[in-house]
Amino acid sequence: MIKAGIIGASGYTGFETIKWLVRHPEVELSFITARTDAGKPLSAVYPTPLDIQFQRVEDVAIGAVDVVFLAVPHGTAAEVAADALKAGTRVIDLSADFRLHSAENYAKWYHHTHPTPHLLDRAVYGLTEWARDAVKTTQLVANPGCYPTSILLAVAPLLKAGLLDKATIIADSKSGVSGAGRAAKVGSLFAEVSENFKPYSIGHSHRHVAEIEQELYTLAGDHAPRGIVFSPHLLPVTRGILSTIYVPLPDNWNTAQLRGLYHDRYRGEPFVWLLPEGDTATLAHTVNTNRCAISLHPVPEVGQLIIVSTIDNLVKGAAGQAVQNMNVMFGVPETMGLE
Amino acid sequence: MIKAGIIGASGYTGFETIKWLVRHPEVELSFITARTDAGKPLSAVYPTPLDIQFQRVEDVAIGAVDVVFLAVPHGTAAEVAADALKAGTRVIDLSADFRLHSAENYAKWYHHTHPTPHLLDRAVYGLTEWARDAVKTTQLVANPGCYPTSILLAVAPLLKAGLLDKATIIADSKSGVSGAGRAAKVGSLFAEVSENFKPYSIGHSHRHVAEIEQELYTLAGDHAPRGIVFSPHLLPVTRGILSTIYVPLPDNWNTAQLRGLYHDRYRGEPFVWLLPEGDTATLAHTVNTNRCAISLHPVPEVGQLIIVSTIDNLVKGAAGQAVQNMNVMFGVPETMGLE
Amino acid sequence: MIKAGIIGASGYTGFETIKWLVRHPEVELSFITARTDAGKPLSAVYPTPLDIQFQRVEDVAIGAVDVVFLAVPHGTAAEVAADALKAGTRVIDLSADFRLHSAENYAKWYHHTHPTPHLLDRAVYGLTEWARDAVKTTQLVANPGCYPTSILLAVAPLLKAGLLDKATIIADSKSGVSGAGRAAKVGSLFAEVSENFKPYSIGHSHRHVAEIEQELYTLAGDHAPRGIVFSPHLLPVTRGILSTIYVPLPDNWNTAQLRGLYHDRYRGEPFVWLLPEGDTATLAHTVNTNRCAISLHPVPEVGQLIIVSTIDNLVKGAAGQAVQNMNVMFGVPETMGLE
Amino acid sequence: MIKAGIIGASGYTGFETIKWLVRHPEVELSFITARTDAGKPLSAVYPTPLDIQFQRVEDVAIGAVDVVFLAVPHGTAAEVAADALKAGTRVIDLSADFRLHSAENYAKWYHHTHPTPHLLDRAVYGLTEWARDAVKTTQLVANPGCYPTSILLAVAPLLKAGLLDKATIIADSKSGVSGAGRAAKVGSLFAEVSENFKPYSIGHSHRHVAEIEQELYTLAGDHAPRGIVFSPHLLPVTRGILSTIYVPLPDNWNTAQLRGLYHDRYRGEPFVWLLPEGDTATLAHTVNTNRCAISLHPVPEVGQLIIVSTIDNLVKGAAGQAVQNMNVMFGVPETMGLE
Repeated sequence: MIKAGIIGASGYTGFETIKWLVRHPEVELSFITARTDAGKPLSAVYPTPLDIQFQRVEDVAIGAVDVVFLAVPHGTAAEVAADALKAGTRVIDLSADFRLHSAENYAKWYHHTHPTPHLLDRAVYGLTEWARDAVKTTQLVANPGCYPTSILLAVAPLLKAGLLDKATIIADSKSGVSGAGRAAKVGSLFAEVSENFKPYSIGHSHRHVAEIEQELYTLAGDHAPRGIVFSPHLLPVTRGILSTIYVPLPDNWNTAQLRGLYHDRYRGEPFVWLLPEGDTATLAHTVNTNRCAISLHPVPEVGQLIIVSTIDNLVKGAAGQAVQNMNVMFGVPETMGLE
Repeated sequence: MIKAGIIGASGYTGFETIKWLVRHPEVELSFITARTDAGKPLSAVYPTPLDIQFQRVEDVAIGAVDVVFLAVPHGTAAEVAADALKAGTRVIDLSADFRLHSAENYAKWYHHTHPTPHLLDRAVYGLTEWARDAVKTTQLVANPGCYPTSILLAVAPLLKAGLLDKATIIADSKSGVSGAGRAAKVGSLFAEVSENFKPYSIGHSHRHVAEIEQELYTLAGDHAPRGIVFSPHLLPVTRGILSTIYVPLPDNWNTAQLRGLYHDRYRGEPFVWLLPEGDTATLAHTVNTNRCAISLHPVPEVGQLIIVSTIDNLVKGAAGQAVQNMNVMFGVPETMGLE
Repeated sequence: MIKAGIIGASGYTGFETIKWLVRHPEVELSFITARTDAGKPLSAVYPTPLDIQFQRVEDVAIGAVDVVFLAVPHGTAAEVAADALKAGTRVIDLSADFRLHSAENYAKWYHHTHPTPHLLDRAVYGLTEWARDAVKTTQLVANPGCYPTSILLAVAPLLKAGLLDKATIIADSKSGVSGAGRAAKVGSLFAEVSENFKPYSIGHSHRHVAEIEQELYTLAGDHAPRGIVFSPHLLPVTRGILSTIYVPLPDNWNTAQLRGLYHDRYRGEPFVWLLPEGDTATLAHTVNTNRCAISLHPVPEVGQLIIVSTIDNLVKGAAGQAVQNMNVMFGVPETMGLE
Repeated sequence: MIKAGIIGASGYTGFETIKWLVRHPEVELSFITARTDAGKPLSAVYPTPLDIQFQRVEDVAIGAVDVVFLAVPHGTAAEVAADALKAGTRVIDLSADFRLHSAENYAKWYHHTHPTPHLLDRAVYGLTEWARDAVKTTQLVANPGCYPTSILLAVAPLLKAGLLDKATIIADSKSGVSGAGRAAKVGSLFAEVSENFKPYSIGHSHRHVAEIEQELYTLAGDHAPRGIVFSPHLLPVTRGILSTIYVPLPDNWNTAQLRGLYHDRYRGEPFVWLLPEGDTATLAHTVNTNRCAISLHPVPEVGQLIIVSTIDNLVKGAAGQAVQNMNVMFGVPETMGLE
């Protein structure tokens, strides 16, 4: 059995991690912590019959578990990670603290100095399908952001094949409200979100741009794209991200070739679902699952390719991918507890 | 022209009052105040092209307007009302501060001493259809609560006719989320409310019980009902209240007699809509209007009568009824600006 | 392994039954049928990676499976059931065809003659918690309606204890739209349902009244209630039923006694969740589970008791309870595949 | 007074047209027709107190009104228009029948022969802000589609200025469900749409592509863009369209210049709302109004410009723009009845 703990388990990501871990046949959930809710049973915070109690982070023995999931805000996570690693416990960090390789870049996008820059080298960016070998052996996984997961899985085969050389990638992404967390904010109120739809931080300003571009360039190698236009929008749904992605259609590539490229790369992947020709990915294809659904739509009339990609932001975009990474780290079947 | 001001205009009720007042052909909106948003244009707080600016309450001349609408929390409203009345300005208070006639009752339900008990006698409970004459001449209107409006309009004809003597009235009410205001609370978040439905403070504990029972007894005179069971529920909609009300079917009354009773009482009322036999009131009948829709459903098999009543909680349940009361107070046509 | 088939699997209930059966460790799903969608893969009708194909009912061998689930409309189900029973296959009917014991009563409420009245005696009304022994040995389970399940589980302990003698039971029930099925009807369109809330067939006219009253009287024995007022409402949610139920508070019963009564009856029941004192059942307590959540709210001020009960209409209100009944019929653990 | 009639008034567009016309101070609504609902009062079809009755189209005197609004499906509209024009009645057609100038193009996109090709020359494409002079004098207005309105208003200033020469325009559009009409279709059911989000007909296949490209080329003159990628998505909201539009950032243009271009063109337009710098258009800016809200977002990092544009699909995207066109045709103030 893998002994696991969750730090910062009272938000949506934390609760989602609890749910997947308690279902996992090889995991024993040793503790969950929360600041404000410490001392309360989980059922006082969420409508669930699960019988677990929030503890204070100061009161749990991080070193007594095999792996700890961090669902605390960026800035805080790095310091907890340092403690855990020191105690010999593996870390899966769901915050942004270890996603960027460079402390300078982190400071630029997150507006504070990185608390533990010496650990950046040890972290693996855990987009499982493209980092499996590194995840296997690392002590510290930086679990990818939700938007980046939906975008990177969709364009990685093209990047790897060198087909987006100097291209501008446009990602028009739409996310459910749970992506904003459970903090009480006016912008997340039902009366503000229902029957509304709202772009925010569009262009090149959302923090996920940093992480997406870093990984785009890594995947593309010598055939780097020019960059990304990233437009997040707030959908009146609770869960799910759908990214509609526009890239130049590779010259002389037809639909069959494109589908072949994706099929070859993803056919063995249990959590990537390349939809049949003619189908279009929707949120309903992936909500409450750890899958990423992808559909390909060439537009030869204007030389463009549209890729639609959907995930559940709390599952493949957070807790589910975290558990998937844990499975890889501990050598149990990658799909265990996730189907 | 009636010069008007709004104190506490940044919440949903305040914004709704703004919208109805700027449309009103006989009103000049002189000022709107807000605490946190003072100094900002309205368009920085709501997506509207209206060009008005929030001021601090300390910076406006309450005495320079004819009427002031109070959309501040209970407790605060009473003190502003006292100032306004002293300055000779009429007051329409949308808070609960002047709804209960008794300071003791107020203290019991609102858990603090009434700030201005000497003013309670001067206030008129402004359920317009049942208090028109008193509203005409008062300086101080206590605008009814949203739930009480939907329930009282529905049962008043029966009460007045003495038909609910010793009866237990069961009001199963369902309200949109805007009723909880624009304060950032976890319970009002989209991700908590959407695809959920939630009873709260059911039985005899919600504060509106005090106001409903006070008015029930007043309307019933010597034929007082036993009391009310009041069950509010939170609906995943932004606006609207629907109350499903259960009372004993008056002995030997048939449908035609019941409909006659309501028709006689309400036929001249512009804002009470008795639906045709066979129709059932829904939120869609009244949302974004100042109407109350009522449908009657006798259940002779078990000797019960169901009354369904709907309003828009922000209009007939707040800002609209406030404007209706203003119209009555200032002698302009009661429907002006409300159609 | 239990071999199972589903007749009429293209609606919401049918698809839900598919999902629970494919997850069940002791079930082999042999076929699914549909009329219009015959020949199509399931993935052409629902966004799912499950690889199954709809067949025509004429093309499947009902006798080759151990149990068949009927998710076809009432009227049709009875005839399929007759065929299946003749072939020696057990039947779990999710339609209304075998819920009423009397063919006369059926004709009165369903407006057509019962197709197979001779089978009515063989059917067991499968409210599992109250019919477990009979379910074990029957060949034909009439799976209860969704509203009746939520109401009967909530009042059964009181009825059994004789505490609702001559009482009028008021059930104010609210259901998600999936309860209306997947048929394309204007009343189920998003633009009609969203931001709306709508009572329908209230009083004593909805077909579920027949089934509820039959079972109320059976449970109550000599202490029969007077009858039920049943008010269904359409909620703007996809799944879930919440019933707010009003009954007279038994004389001299305090909260502890009431809770004791329910606790004694339900403590061993895996799918009935009596909430802790102070909590109130909401849809979120039960959506996507086979649980029924119940909370008790005495209102001594007016001598009433409110019981709030929630289920997922497609799970405990349909497919889940059907699988629960299957587990009982075939002697596997009752919770298998349902947690 | 302008005498008006509506043909095909029972759908969402028709009902919306009714609502705006009855509020219009210079309009007398003479008749409304419907096929299935003929003979019924409007209140039997929509929850409204308006007292009007649907008639059969055969029973109304089209020649007795000054203008007729056509809200019937394409194909049907052309023939009614021919009759009306013959009778000397002006026509505002909300269908697609007169939007394309070429009968060949119409046949290609709508898969049937145009019923009245001889009338195509007489029709004016009524994007009011760009066709005002022609609308003034025509007998036949082709009211623009909802998506095209949101997209064309957003890019027209750039096209007119010759700034999109050979550019590929990417329009990622999201629409509320009312855009699909009131026909009962599975895809429009609440249970399919709620908590879902769905692209459809993306790329270059939606019928509105024909209309958009025709007008793009007309506006651009010698500086034609290469073409459009148009991706419609179905939002879980009832009303509203938001288009996120990507075009190349004109060389050496800074934000101030871009804003100046739009400001110069639109500052006198009552229904185009160029948002202040820093704001982003959302559905809430325009729902239930005849406005189009536009915000500009240059992305110099990758040489792109994002334009966000929102309208209410039933108002500026249909009934409201139709009334605006009527106002222009009849020489009354363009904003009359629309504020």
